[in-house]
Amino acid sequence: ENADELRFQKDTLTHRLKDTESKNQTLEAQLSDLQQRLKSTQLEREAYQKSLRSLLELLDSKIFELTELRDTLAKLIEGS
Amino acid sequence: ENADELRFQKDTLTHRLKDTESKNQTLEAQLSDLQQRLKSTQLEREAYQKSLRSLLELLDSKIFELTELRDTLAKLIEGS
Amino acid sequence: ENADELRFQKDTLTHRLKDTESKNQTLEAQLSDLQQRLKSTQLEREAYQKSLRSLLELLDSKIFELTELRDTLAKLIEGS
Amino acid sequence: ENADELRFQKDTLTHRLKDTESKNQTLEAQLSDLQQRLKSTQLEREAYQKSLRSLLELLDSKIFELTELRDTLAKLIEGS
Repeated sequence: ENADELRFQKDTLTHRLKDTESKNQTLEAQLSDLQQRLKSTQLEREAYQKSLRSLLELLDSKIFELTELRDTLAKLIEGS
Repeated sequence: ENADELRFQKDTLTHRLKDTESKNQTLEAQLSDLQQRLKSTQLEREAYQKSLRSLLELLDSKIFELTELRDTLAKLIEGS
Repeated sequence: ENADELRFQKDTLTHRLKDTESKNQTLEAQLSDLQQRLKSTQLEREAYQKSLRSLLELLDSKIFELTELRDTLAKLIEGS
Repeated sequence: ENADELRFQKDTLTHRLKDTESKNQTLEAQLSDLQQRLKSTQLEREAYQKSLRSLLELLDSKIFELTELRDTLAKLIEGS
């Protein structure tokens, strides 16, 4: 290899390295964005589960109150 | 007592007896009517109780179905 | 009719009148008792209806609260 | 620059390029994995919403049936 040939190879490698590093940065940005979205999805999901759990407790209390009403009706029927 | 006096007393008694017997019939009719009303009131009441008992059974099944729905929601919350 | 015959008829009538008056008192007592029972039955019935009306109002409020819960669930499903 | 110096620079660049390309592959694998997880999270979420929607419809029918029961009770109270 003479110096001209080596200089040409060096320039080619420098160019490819820059391209690859640039692509790398793009990928890292995409990865960071996706991780952010996954995390916010997870947080939304937890908030959602919490709302559903409150709803379940409310439903429990409504079923309990309907059962009390049912017992009152049963006593009225028995007692008359 | 002479015969005239006795005859007068007899007539008076006959008149009072008729009045009392007439009143008797009226009372018996009222009594019969009232017994009829009491009986029909009793029958209405039994029919009413029967309707209420059907309603109670229906309410029981609705509470049961709401409890099943509640369990399905609880499983959805747990499983996610 | 001679006086003896009339006297006999008078005694017979007096006896029948007493019997009839006695039966009358019995009927009046039965009638009064029945009227009392009918009245107390009516009062019980009104108290019963009042209890059922309270129950109906309670059921209305439970249905209303279940409907609110349903709307909350619908909003959670829409919003997510 | 003489040939030795250029050869050294060429080797260094070749090494850096390989490192960067290797990191690139790692990043692409992570990105693909994350996209897969986000997609499966999305699918789970849609299945979950579908289950909740079924539950809401069931709750609607239970509220409707309780309202019918309530109307039956109201008619019983009115009619007696």
